[in-house]
Amino acid sequence: MSLSEFELIDRFFRNCGAARSDVRLGVGDDAALLECPRDRQLVAAIDTLVEGVHFPAGAPAASVGHRVLAVNLSDLAAMGAEPAWGLLALTIPRADGAWLAEFSEGLCALAREFQVALVGGDTTSGPLCATLQILGFSEPATALTRSGGKAGDAVFVSGTPGDAAAGLLLEQSRLSVLEPDVAAHLRSRFLFPAPRVALGRRLRGYASACIDISDGLLGDAAKLARASSCGVELEHERLPLSVALKRACGEDRAHALALLGGDDYELLFSVPPARIGALQRDLPPAEWSYARIGTLVGELGARVLRHGNVMDFAHSGFDHFAAPS
Amino acid sequence: MSLSEFELIDRFFRNCGAARSDVRLGVGDDAALLECPRDRQLVAAIDTLVEGVHFPAGAPAASVGHRVLAVNLSDLAAMGAEPAWGLLALTIPRADGAWLAEFSEGLCALAREFQVALVGGDTTSGPLCATLQILGFSEPATALTRSGGKAGDAVFVSGTPGDAAAGLLLEQSRLSVLEPDVAAHLRSRFLFPAPRVALGRRLRGYASACIDISDGLLGDAAKLARASSCGVELEHERLPLSVALKRACGEDRAHALALLGGDDYELLFSVPPARIGALQRDLPPAEWSYARIGTLVGELGARVLRHGNVMDFAHSGFDHFAAPS
Repeated sequence: MSLSEFELIDRFFRNCGAARSDVRLGVGDDAALLECPRDRQLVAAIDTLVEGVHFPAGAPAASVGHRVLAVNLSDLAAMGAEPAWGLLALTIPRADGAWLAEFSEGLCALAREFQVALVGGDTTSGPLCATLQILGFSEPATALTRSGGKAGDAVFVSGTPGDAAAGLLLEQSRLSVLEPDVAAHLRSRFLFPAPRVALGRRLRGYASACIDISDGLLGDAAKLARASSCGVELEHERLPLSVALKRACGEDRAHALALLGGDDYELLFSVPPARIGALQRDLPPAEWSYARIGTLVGELGARVLRHGNVMDFAHSGFDHFAAPS
Repeated sequence: MSLSEFELIDRFFRNCGAARSDVRLGVGDDAALLECPRDRQLVAAIDTLVEGVHFPAGAPAASVGHRVLAVNLSDLAAMGAEPAWGLLALTIPRADGAWLAEFSEGLCALAREFQVALVGGDTTSGPLCATLQILGFSEPATALTRSGGKAGDAVFVSGTPGDAAAGLLLEQSRLSVLEPDVAAHLRSRFLFPAPRVALGRRLRGYASACIDISDGLLGDAAKLARASSCGVELEHERLPLSVALKRACGEDRAHALALLGGDDYELLFSVPPARIGALQRDLPPAEWSYARIGTLVGELGARVLRHGNVMDFAHSGFDHFAAPS
């Protein structure tokens, strides 16, 4: 692409997202200049979406823009952090004005919703690929991590996992659903996930450990358990499945997608027994949309119990669960 | 790639670069936790290298690792900032242990040299592409920008531009050079550029504006001039060409590569007339390797003067100068 094409592209991302008074210098110089608040830790994450790996070729540009920010916001949510600034590295095969306008609108609308200012970026030519770096803040010693869980802690999950995986199958024409509102709901859960930033912020002081489920509930529960030097047991009957997912797939496949499908961007967190009462009083589960699904245990590994018996697939290891969608 | 492959990859990047006491939580959780120093602004930049666009297919992995950090360090150098932390988003077609070991050694060696800790990352499968986000600090109100130049300011450049472009031509077998030491020098200038962080730090208080030359000296001089609401005139005779470049290409082509070639990662900066004496006294040009090459002027646009006459190619616009190498 030529220099003037790059300049056109830059215009889509100038003044993108929230206007923040802590941005001294944003898009357009060699680097951005930002004011860190005193008495806050900086929280930083980076995530990439590759066409054909993390989203199907031809996915709506608004969804790609939304998701590249959402997956990063979800990382901050899992830390209980407050988002502030983003930097975008976008690689595109050619400067397609309509695609870029739609992509930037998807990105910038979500950035405004979460008070994120886009402060820098780099546009290059190549196979379609978007990387976003998110920066935010955390009060010292309050950040949630994966490693604070203990055997005996209850395990909770937010939202209705599996919906996004079914939405992706619909996008790929690998699932067909007769009811248009069911299909639209599931599709939208894949295309436009809602990061649980508010829940993550509120979980500080209650949760002992937290992770966002991007690679699949079971695989990510295993990661949290391992980081906490525990095992985890999930109860098949307790998985919070959406009505839409059950209508689209039936009970059995719905459970499999909830456990093994990816792209949910919900939070999975552990809570010590002594804090469960306070959690459920201060954050009513129906209002905040979360459910208890299992327990951290002393025996290492991740297991799913169905009617009290360990389900078979848990013995096969998790490698294939985390395969890129 | 499977989960265990991703975990293998993560190992290459754990404890990569400098050990810094301001890293509270590094690679391995949903996000990194970092302590910003008080009374410093945060400086943030992001840059991507795509195979076949920013480096030839089959380039040495150590060079790709080195360059993805070097191009970002160069952005911080242009701001006069001090580097601190990096996050890496790496997309690779497959988990190739030997390639990854070499890539991470190239990245981590440069990170140690510049006291940068790698604090996070994301590894995905897809076409080879590396994005690095760099974070650093600047004392408030001392950062260099592109926009502080004024008509009458002298324009300087560090190093010997054009070498990297010749090095790339050698890598692509589009240039042949009989003398092995000349070829090795030029190749190394493309494969392992040395970011001018120390010079950028020292230019604060002298330079009125600064930019790193990544897209070509003339195009980047034009960007600095435009951001400063000026024009710029460069003097063909003053371009600091290396002996190696002249031996490899001859005088005319050497000048063209110095003006129009990319990938130098040197600094181009303007200095008000009243500060030139102090600059040259405090930072002796021979020791710091920089040279005066022109002047910011009132008339907009970028021009190259040869024996006092405006050179023709300056009339054709800059689009093709900035084409990806």
